[in-house]
Amino acid sequence: MNFIDIINKKRTKRELTTEEIYFVIDQIGKSPDYQFSALLMAICLNGMTHREIADLTGAMLYSGDIIDLNAIEGIKVDKHSTGGVADTTTLVLAPLTASCGLPVVKMSGRGLGHTGGTLDKLESIPGFNIALTQNEAIKQVNDIKAVIMGQTGKLCPADGYLYKLRDVTGTVQSIPLIASSIMSKKLAAGTDAIVLDVKCGSGAFMKNIDDARALANEMVEIGRQLRRKVTAIITDMDQPLGNNIGNTLEVIEAAEILKGNIKGDLYEVSLTLGAEMLVLGGLAKDTVSAREMLEENIKNGKGLAKFREIIVRQGGSPYVLDDYSRFKQPKLKKEIYLKKGYVTAFDTESVGRASAALGAGRTSYDMPIDYSAGIVINYRKGDLYDGKKPFAVMYSDDKYKLKDGEEIFVEAVETGSEQPEKTSPVIEMIR
Amino acid sequence: MNFIDIINKKRTKRELTTEEIYFVIDQIGKSPDYQFSALLMAICLNGMTHREIADLTGAMLYSGDIIDLNAIEGIKVDKHSTGGVADTTTLVLAPLTASCGLPVVKMSGRGLGHTGGTLDKLESIPGFNIALTQNEAIKQVNDIKAVIMGQTGKLCPADGYLYKLRDVTGTVQSIPLIASSIMSKKLAAGTDAIVLDVKCGSGAFMKNIDDARALANEMVEIGRQLRRKVTAIITDMDQPLGNNIGNTLEVIEAAEILKGNIKGDLYEVSLTLGAEMLVLGGLAKDTVSAREMLEENIKNGKGLAKFREIIVRQGGSPYVLDDYSRFKQPKLKKEIYLKKGYVTAFDTESVGRASAALGAGRTSYDMPIDYSAGIVINYRKGDLYDGKKPFAVMYSDDKYKLKDGEEIFVEAVETGSEQPEKTSPVIEMIR
Repeated sequence: MNFIDIINKKRTKRELTTEEIYFVIDQIGKSPDYQFSALLMAICLNGMTHREIADLTGAMLYSGDIIDLNAIEGIKVDKHSTGGVADTTTLVLAPLTASCGLPVVKMSGRGLGHTGGTLDKLESIPGFNIALTQNEAIKQVNDIKAVIMGQTGKLCPADGYLYKLRDVTGTVQSIPLIASSIMSKKLAAGTDAIVLDVKCGSGAFMKNIDDARALANEMVEIGRQLRRKVTAIITDMDQPLGNNIGNTLEVIEAAEILKGNIKGDLYEVSLTLGAEMLVLGGLAKDTVSAREMLEENIKNGKGLAKFREIIVRQGGSPYVLDDYSRFKQPKLKKEIYLKKGYVTAFDTESVGRASAALGAGRTSYDMPIDYSAGIVINYRKGDLYDGKKPFAVMYSDDKYKLKDGEEIFVEAVETGSEQPEKTSPVIEMIR
Repeated sequence: MNFIDIINKKRTKRELTTEEIYFVIDQIGKSPDYQFSALLMAICLNGMTHREIADLTGAMLYSGDIIDLNAIEGIKVDKHSTGGVADTTTLVLAPLTASCGLPVVKMSGRGLGHTGGTLDKLESIPGFNIALTQNEAIKQVNDIKAVIMGQTGKLCPADGYLYKLRDVTGTVQSIPLIASSIMSKKLAAGTDAIVLDVKCGSGAFMKNIDDARALANEMVEIGRQLRRKVTAIITDMDQPLGNNIGNTLEVIEAAEILKGNIKGDLYEVSLTLGAEMLVLGGLAKDTVSAREMLEENIKNGKGLAKFREIIVRQGGSPYVLDDYSRFKQPKLKKEIYLKKGYVTAFDTESVGRASAALGAGRTSYDMPIDYSAGIVINYRKGDLYDGKKPFAVMYSDDKYKLKDGEEIFVEAVETGSEQPEKTSPVIEMIR
């Protein structure tokens, strides 16, 4: 088998065999980068069949460690979001579904660019430790049903290689490559079922519903071919999901939902994803009864108690949940006023970048984070903004960052005279 | 300006600006190979406009030396073939057009794969020197009107880089890339006008007339945009052009044509290209009168005399032209008989590979060549082969090579009961 023949085959739009795809992945570290990038571009432009995509996923999956969660009793269900702004669903649904009896092994990532990361949010809780070994994680789940942690082991090194190469060769935008990248990592994490939250809109990787639907369908299809239960839920990212953006601020918003104090889009999406997780986990017969279980555990406080339990077990201080002033506090704040009118549009990616500019995010993996920095937005799309209270409040430790963040933010929000239709944050479900 | 943005632009089928194309070429040696190969694949699949192709040609042209032929009086006309089998036109038309007064600076290449190279053919003449300096070449042309030599200077290093990278990344097949590669080198050679011989058929790079026409049109268009006179002539490569394949054998066939002893397709194509050269060179008002001049100089022996003059001036022994036994002689010969019938088809590329297998060609640039090895084919497409004399005779110094060559050759020729139409070797002319 010969790499150049395989590139030529894909260039001329012919289907690669299973053996050819495994050969390519096996060539990582043996063949030069320029052959991989040529093939990646050919895949971007000529696509792949469902079978090829499933094979590519499998080949990347088996390129590294696969986590063995058999020591945990019950059906293990994972949740994955394609990334958004004020997307705090993990902090709501991990404790909440665990409180209903679902074993939750949630391996999360860090924020980069305009999106936040669950690990950074958790580390804003004083003392919280995300670096657990696999054995510690398994023991914790068997003891208290839930763990939220960083990735262990060397999962999908082939994906790591291709992901980095795509980033510098203009080959990021490809449904087959995106779908196989996500799914190989998720399948290597060893759970029995996966609920995918595919974000769609101005703050998401997929800007329109057609692309989001194509990605969602492709990932569900990969699950079907590799015999894992996968549900994809397309949700709206044309505005930040929650009202709070920034690490501490998002922990607080999640706690408020678990306390039953607020509802809204973040609540809605969290419960939709959580209900599907309970159904796939075999703990509810349908999503209606699953949702009732989740709502009940907000009312009776079991969800919040589970969150507290996770924090304590992982070395964090649970008292921040009772007294938010125990979080590190920002030095400066700035109230933002805009032109009055209906809130017509968010450039959500820019809103995320505004928060990062305040210090809440990073543009490269080694940047430090200011946990208290961020934005609280008081209005949502379709709301009438009358200018009496600030449209948003920004927090930072640095006045220059505050200025940068404001400049980006005010450009990212539109107000106007016509009220746009309010839409549901849950757009479509694909099983 | 950013390489990744440029790749993304071409991936999404947008036209690159002149500045972007010059930026890319300037990045050779600065940006990693994998970015170039991704861009090359995007160009293969999404194409380029005429303007982009002319810019790419210009950028590669100006990446290295440009030969200055101003010290030579008259309009300098070059000829370039895209490569074929038994394609000996240069050895016929360089002396013949020079004998009509055209200044001919012919920079030629070596053979590789199934195609022969003019330099190898000339070096089969004892003593012939192809390594002239630019000044020596100019002096020779001013003295005797013609030189046939290897490339001097460092022409188009950018093309050299991209050409090698394309070879190992499955990005060879692209009209914009092929056209700009050929034209940048030809334009750097400093002549005023170029006649292109675009081969079409089983022994050519372009297998069908649509591809050949597209390449021819693109190269003429590049000439138009860069203000050089360019004519492209599409000629048939569905069978070897001449009857002799191999270095010494092809010199002999060229000499026979210059002596007026044989006609046929090689004669026809040589005179068609040569007539166009005389017209572009301003030495004839039209191709009819130009052709008469060429025919006249075969009859009166001036063409052959010019060939002899070139050989003497470049240190070779001209006596081989009078006595072919003065060439190095092959040790072995083998007569090839096939199934009787009409000659219906040649796999011309395989015929070329058969000759290379006998020792006449090379598969890598450092292989030695057996100048006397090769094939004489006694029949052409449409001829009735009755089996009374051999279909072809093969020559080699090595009995294993003779066997290899025969095996490839007999698979490459088809005979059958229906006589195929005889077609003209000159298919189309694009000015």
